[in-house]
Amino acid sequence: MEAIANVLADRYASEPMRAIWSPRGRVLLEREYWIAVLKAQRDLGLPVPEGAIADYERVKEQIDLASIRRREQTLRHDVKARLDEFCALAGHEHIHKGLTSRDLTESVEQLQIYRAMELVRLKAVAALVALSRRAGESKNVFLAARTHNTPAQVTTLGKRLAMFGDEMLLAFEALDQLLARYPVRGLKGAVGTQMDQLTLFRGDAGKVVELERRILAHLGIARALMATGQVYPRSLDFSVVSALYQLSSGPASFAKTLRLMAGHDLAGEGFAPGQVGSSAMPHKMNSRSCERLNGLQVVLRGYLTMTEGLAGDQWNEGDVSCSVVRRVALPNSFFAMDGLLETFLTILDHMEINHAVVDRELRNYLPFLSTTTILMEAVKAGTGRETAHEIIKGHAVAAARDLRSGKIRENDLFQRLAADARLGLDVAALERIGRETRSHAGAAGAQVDWFVRAVMHLHERFPQAGQIQAGPIL
Amino acid sequence: MEAIANVLADRYASEPMRAIWSPRGRVLLEREYWIAVLKAQRDLGLPVPEGAIADYERVKEQIDLASIRRREQTLRHDVKARLDEFCALAGHEHIHKGLTSRDLTESVEQLQIYRAMELVRLKAVAALVALSRRAGESKNVFLAARTHNTPAQVTTLGKRLAMFGDEMLLAFEALDQLLARYPVRGLKGAVGTQMDQLTLFRGDAGKVVELERRILAHLGIARALMATGQVYPRSLDFSVVSALYQLSSGPASFAKTLRLMAGHDLAGEGFAPGQVGSSAMPHKMNSRSCERLNGLQVVLRGYLTMTEGLAGDQWNEGDVSCSVVRRVALPNSFFAMDGLLETFLTILDHMEINHAVVDRELRNYLPFLSTTTILMEAVKAGTGRETAHEIIKGHAVAAARDLRSGKIRENDLFQRLAADARLGLDVAALERIGRETRSHAGAAGAQVDWFVRAVMHLHERFPQAGQIQAGPIL
Amino acid sequence: MEAIANVLADRYASEPMRAIWSPRGRVLLEREYWIAVLKAQRDLGLPVPEGAIADYERVKEQIDLASIRRREQTLRHDVKARLDEFCALAGHEHIHKGLTSRDLTESVEQLQIYRAMELVRLKAVAALVALSRRAGESKNVFLAARTHNTPAQVTTLGKRLAMFGDEMLLAFEALDQLLARYPVRGLKGAVGTQMDQLTLFRGDAGKVVELERRILAHLGIARALMATGQVYPRSLDFSVVSALYQLSSGPASFAKTLRLMAGHDLAGEGFAPGQVGSSAMPHKMNSRSCERLNGLQVVLRGYLTMTEGLAGDQWNEGDVSCSVVRRVALPNSFFAMDGLLETFLTILDHMEINHAVVDRELRNYLPFLSTTTILMEAVKAGTGRETAHEIIKGHAVAAARDLRSGKIRENDLFQRLAADARLGLDVAALERIGRETRSHAGAAGAQVDWFVRAVMHLHERFPQAGQIQAGPIL
Amino acid sequence: MEAIANVLADRYASEPMRAIWSPRGRVLLEREYWIAVLKAQRDLGLPVPEGAIADYERVKEQIDLASIRRREQTLRHDVKARLDEFCALAGHEHIHKGLTSRDLTESVEQLQIYRAMELVRLKAVAALVALSRRAGESKNVFLAARTHNTPAQVTTLGKRLAMFGDEMLLAFEALDQLLARYPVRGLKGAVGTQMDQLTLFRGDAGKVVELERRILAHLGIARALMATGQVYPRSLDFSVVSALYQLSSGPASFAKTLRLMAGHDLAGEGFAPGQVGSSAMPHKMNSRSCERLNGLQVVLRGYLTMTEGLAGDQWNEGDVSCSVVRRVALPNSFFAMDGLLETFLTILDHMEINHAVVDRELRNYLPFLSTTTILMEAVKAGTGRETAHEIIKGHAVAAARDLRSGKIRENDLFQRLAADARLGLDVAALERIGRETRSHAGAAGAQVDWFVRAVMHLHERFPQAGQIQAGPIL
Repeated sequence: MEAIANVLADRYASEPMRAIWSPRGRVLLEREYWIAVLKAQRDLGLPVPEGAIADYERVKEQIDLASIRRREQTLRHDVKARLDEFCALAGHEHIHKGLTSRDLTESVEQLQIYRAMELVRLKAVAALVALSRRAGESKNVFLAARTHNTPAQVTTLGKRLAMFGDEMLLAFEALDQLLARYPVRGLKGAVGTQMDQLTLFRGDAGKVVELERRILAHLGIARALMATGQVYPRSLDFSVVSALYQLSSGPASFAKTLRLMAGHDLAGEGFAPGQVGSSAMPHKMNSRSCERLNGLQVVLRGYLTMTEGLAGDQWNEGDVSCSVVRRVALPNSFFAMDGLLETFLTILDHMEINHAVVDRELRNYLPFLSTTTILMEAVKAGTGRETAHEIIKGHAVAAARDLRSGKIRENDLFQRLAADARLGLDVAALERIGRETRSHAGAAGAQVDWFVRAVMHLHERFPQAGQIQAGPIL
Repeated sequence: MEAIANVLADRYASEPMRAIWSPRGRVLLEREYWIAVLKAQRDLGLPVPEGAIADYERVKEQIDLASIRRREQTLRHDVKARLDEFCALAGHEHIHKGLTSRDLTESVEQLQIYRAMELVRLKAVAALVALSRRAGESKNVFLAARTHNTPAQVTTLGKRLAMFGDEMLLAFEALDQLLARYPVRGLKGAVGTQMDQLTLFRGDAGKVVELERRILAHLGIARALMATGQVYPRSLDFSVVSALYQLSSGPASFAKTLRLMAGHDLAGEGFAPGQVGSSAMPHKMNSRSCERLNGLQVVLRGYLTMTEGLAGDQWNEGDVSCSVVRRVALPNSFFAMDGLLETFLTILDHMEINHAVVDRELRNYLPFLSTTTILMEAVKAGTGRETAHEIIKGHAVAAARDLRSGKIRENDLFQRLAADARLGLDVAALERIGRETRSHAGAAGAQVDWFVRAVMHLHERFPQAGQIQAGPIL
Repeated sequence: MEAIANVLADRYASEPMRAIWSPRGRVLLEREYWIAVLKAQRDLGLPVPEGAIADYERVKEQIDLASIRRREQTLRHDVKARLDEFCALAGHEHIHKGLTSRDLTESVEQLQIYRAMELVRLKAVAALVALSRRAGESKNVFLAARTHNTPAQVTTLGKRLAMFGDEMLLAFEALDQLLARYPVRGLKGAVGTQMDQLTLFRGDAGKVVELERRILAHLGIARALMATGQVYPRSLDFSVVSALYQLSSGPASFAKTLRLMAGHDLAGEGFAPGQVGSSAMPHKMNSRSCERLNGLQVVLRGYLTMTEGLAGDQWNEGDVSCSVVRRVALPNSFFAMDGLLETFLTILDHMEINHAVVDRELRNYLPFLSTTTILMEAVKAGTGRETAHEIIKGHAVAAARDLRSGKIRENDLFQRLAADARLGLDVAALERIGRETRSHAGAAGAQVDWFVRAVMHLHERFPQAGQIQAGPIL
Repeated sequence: MEAIANVLADRYASEPMRAIWSPRGRVLLEREYWIAVLKAQRDLGLPVPEGAIADYERVKEQIDLASIRRREQTLRHDVKARLDEFCALAGHEHIHKGLTSRDLTESVEQLQIYRAMELVRLKAVAALVALSRRAGESKNVFLAARTHNTPAQVTTLGKRLAMFGDEMLLAFEALDQLLARYPVRGLKGAVGTQMDQLTLFRGDAGKVVELERRILAHLGIARALMATGQVYPRSLDFSVVSALYQLSSGPASFAKTLRLMAGHDLAGEGFAPGQVGSSAMPHKMNSRSCERLNGLQVVLRGYLTMTEGLAGDQWNEGDVSCSVVRRVALPNSFFAMDGLLETFLTILDHMEINHAVVDRELRNYLPFLSTTTILMEAVKAGTGRETAHEIIKGHAVAAARDLRSGKIRENDLFQRLAADARLGLDVAALERIGRETRSHAGAAGAQVDWFVRAVMHLHERFPQAGQIQAGPIL
């Protein structure tokens, strides 16, 4: 039987993210968890025979996935299969006392989720750093801003990048707060009452509290839920994938915009030596990485849907109707997010700006880009705002139509406006406005400075982000 | 043309939530915003003729939606229609200077969102208070907990309610933090550079900063985005609806569980005098409110999907492809959430527990509910955990099969276990375990206490929640 | 209490679609259904007093929604409220015999769905007719086709339109087949066994079959489900909205493409006299209708999500957890779809092509657009396909880079290729290829002819589509 | 680097479905496609050197995925990597002439989709056969039907199963029609104009038509799109996954209902020898397969979301923003669907009905289950329908309340009704109704017969379905 690889892990995700979700790694996390519980139980007074812990420790890295699967085929219970395997290797039956399967699996899965969120957070900082570098570099690259995909006013490329950065910072904050409040289920037993640990400790509630405290310390997560059932509430998984989705949105809007800019030859995502754009059309240099980034966001949305389907669907104290969903949605949403950030980092590394084209476009559209300022000047000169708007609109639309029909070759809007006495602005005044428009973009520069500073502070908090580099992409 | 009502607003949402999203109310919010900008511009030195502000103030409540719509039919621009209407009423053209439509609409819509989130937060506190009251009351109502929808161990009804409450608290915290960090777009102009305000103020950046500060104060929202385009990032809308969806999950799981309990006659959502359960079957008392609550969560999920489709889809500095989506998804997700919380409050008010049935079920399943404790006792007595598990499983499955086939009428599991020498537990010991099982639910009581306390602290922070009452429902 | 209108019905949907879903209209449909059942019961032998049917008929159009609502507030059962109201008006209690609420409501809702699907089908034909007219007109408008948003090869505008038309035809066929197989639930009783009709007819199964047959004839839908429960399977609603979503996709891709073309000044959706593009920037002529169309597809996706949440969630013979979902999702998905087709028709009516700009773009990119043909010619001349690809790619990428950097102003790719001896093509040959490329688009013309013919056949089947016209849009 | 397996393929899907989507299998399909095109080109007159085709044939099964990946790392183009690999193995550069990458990949992927749909169709027939067998067997197993999860009227288990079967038949028909109309993109070239094939064949359109015809014959799919761009419309992928989702709904509702029945001990999904229900609670026999089935439907919904995100998002003639989405969503939606049907078959094989419990429940609820018939009889005896409804409701609610509070132990509704003179029915009449109610379920039997017959006809059309067996499940 040919193994079918997980395509997201295989083609898009980075090695550190793959390591978090590796099947063997998971078995090891579980075994370490069992041993940690056993040690804590012993230290708190439960009888554990001499040598048992050492025996479990000794075999914990002997991981034979095929043997575990054979057990599962009979037991039809995955945890029992892994439990029996570990006990058989160690020659004891001392782990899993007072535990239900979910005490184990929820803890280990939440640990994977937590570490994966930490990795995403770090990579997001790296992406913000790269983006802020690009924004800073292009702080004074003046550009025709577009709304409705058509030229609107002047902005700078730096400000456009800061705009996507601002969105990303907002999402970063949400993820950061989620990490800070993220609770594990804790050692709550079969229906959440801790009954079995209490039985083991002959009703000593203090010891059970202490046991859970030690297990949290083992996991390295500070907070636990208080009153769960057999499972932690699945809306928590939803909130995790939702945070990822929010975080993907700034990069996705950036990527769409870069695809649009590439369509105008204004910029490109880079084209590596040896790369091929199209097997049919040799001249093609396509925005494949940007397209991939957008595709990965759609993929993430699918996993979000899966977690949506679990939230609010708990029957009584819980069951495993969520099992296959979480097996699919949790690792894969992180693989998709990781691949998305890898792709984003690659684009930020290789993005090219075609300054000559940017300038040409700006020049072509300048009279149109100036209409708001002309409107403001007319207002300052005493024309009613809506009246001036109507006049300018009339001439601008006529000029645009003549340009599009080929009737005129050069944009003569300034001449048309100067010829209209109602506005009271002569050609010289209008051309001055045009000149100023070309190299002024309001508060754009200040906004770039703000963004660069905000990211700098973040980088100081997460200096390790400096070592993150996009791996080679397929 | 017969008006078609918004069914969520009309049938499910409360009057305060409807008021936030009322069409007339929105026009008024816009007009107040325009006036606030105009005042600030004047105070910061822009020339505004004597009396203009007063004239706008005077007519601001003359709202004629039909007249506005007639204007829109020609202009094909909704803001321009409302702008022209207001100016015509006031006899001036002084508002909207240096503004783009989105300066107005984003601000007003964000204000609606913010107030609606505040209302949801308050109502969520009220629901938590009602839930904690119910949990406290039923702290000692012992109940067969179910996993996989079949009896598992003993819990208490109070703990089951606290479990859903814990989920809700988690979501509450997420919403609360979102409210605390929620930023408005601010007065950023047509492409986000504040160019037009800067032009109006002849380049005085300090004045533009101050203008925005005053507008934020008018809105009562502390924080603004720094580097947006024409629109604020739509992933922010997603994060809002996502927070609502998370908040709906605890109530939804509660409602599903109550529907399951009703199927066993254990509990019901109440049945009012005069109410009819079925037009065909006179005996029916259906969980219609619980079903509605679950339906409203599915509705909310649809609006979440809509906001997902906007996040990451910004082209350049923005456009209005989001317009119809936000017109639909934003008010309606709040109407659905509000209706869901109204329904939840109603259920919490009227829920009935059938103690006799609860007791009978507990008694019937007691030997099964005791198996974990028996397992723990066998382990303490020296049997290997997995060996004891296998033995008990064998007898329990056999007893269950005989009960289901009608071969036996009474559960004789204790006799079977006592007869198996491998376990070393006699009937007396097993019956003692059974008795203890029936009235012990581990840490359930402590968890209820914790939940009641946690909600009490919240209530102290939001004392107005005490005045929230479920309105009559359809 | 200010009424809050359904925004999709109010702003986007057409009057015929609104009429199908009108609240009063629905009450009338229900009353007619009750009367039809009563008549059939009488004709098949059940005792119905003289005059009762006439009394019901007489009052059936006296529809007082407020009175019904008052009843519902006590009964908490919407059908019972409408039933009591109708009986009170008529002074009889003879309708609804042997019926469960769902016998009534499912039938009436399915009738609304069926008629709404028929209207969508008709409007889709109208849209295809308009699209095919546009495609035919622009059959010979040569255009730079784009893949990855950058110039690829030559196509024609007509073929581009036929491409979106082909997608729409595929979806049309799916909807058409769905309409042909669409089954109603039929008169199945409280749990689907027809028990109560059988009781009424003293076990005469033949009469019950005949009763259902007559009711189907009343509805005008040929087919009924055989073995439903209280409700028809909700996956049927899903399949309806799914068919709408598929149908929205061709128009949505068209709209996105027109927005892209507008960004290059190649085409526009039209700009009506008096229209305003931006309240801030007088020169703007935005693709607002195209953006709206894309927005409406996202809205539709949200309703699709709602129906997804119902499919596969039937508990036993059914309940009303679907009720609020269907109240929201069913009418609104049709309002959204109807609005989308209205918008599409408007765009097709007013779309403008800027031929001068189209030509200029084609000329600029011509050498690039020719590379595949050059590759084919090189292959025919004996160069290995992959070798030739590599050579052409090298020169094309270099030329593109020089153009983008401003190093060259004119595309000199032909010169570069001619200078490379490995290809064996001289400038004359290359320029000949260029000339041919400019006015040849392969099978594009034949594809347009095919599309026009296919739509013509459809129009013959639905001649009434010729009367459909886009209403004025907001 | 540890390989991370595709969890759906690895744990849930069957070998035949895995084979369709195997990476090596896909490479082979591509190579066979290239060879088929090359042969057809040669047969239609293009020069292909002696032996080239044989050389390609000879090496086509030498598939080295690692080598292909190494090529891709440089080329950043997956198809070019596979093309270069195949050419290097064969020592020729003759394949892929006049092709764009998508001519190859769309065809091969559509072939995979088509074959996977055929497999799903066959397995759906097998499931329907198993379900109809179960329905036939339990045609006379009387059961308390439930609406709103509470007892409503009498039905039969066979009818309940037929009900889910009817839903499945409806979805089957939709899938069957989709297969019948499913079109491939065909050999359309880089932007859909077939320009390059026309160039190769020196403009001979007839030959290009014939070439495409031969390739369709190679694929074994009858129909092609006429006017696509570089890609076929992605709404086609949506319609495929949508058909799967519809097909999953009947089984999903069945599984939820079986979970509910298991909660009442009425039925179970079977419990294999050696199986373990819970690692903590030895007595547990959980509905894990039913829960899995429901989980797999949620998974499928996630993939549906992904395809929704592609439909209507085509820019111009297309790009690869869909690539990663389709790599994930297409195979995995089929793996999920296949796993769902495998699970369904397993449940149908092992489902157990606890007749004693079914009977006891029926007996307990009998007076309630009779209320509709009592209502019908009262109506026949002359009481107004709504009046009788009100009377019966009063007594039924009172009896239910007394039972739930423990005030009475036996249901005395018949006595209460007999004592109410307004109804005019004595105890004997009521008890007769009760007796008849217990063993009559209206048209339930006829509906089961109909279902069994309908499936029989389907089985005759797909006799191979008889060989489908559920594989062992994990």
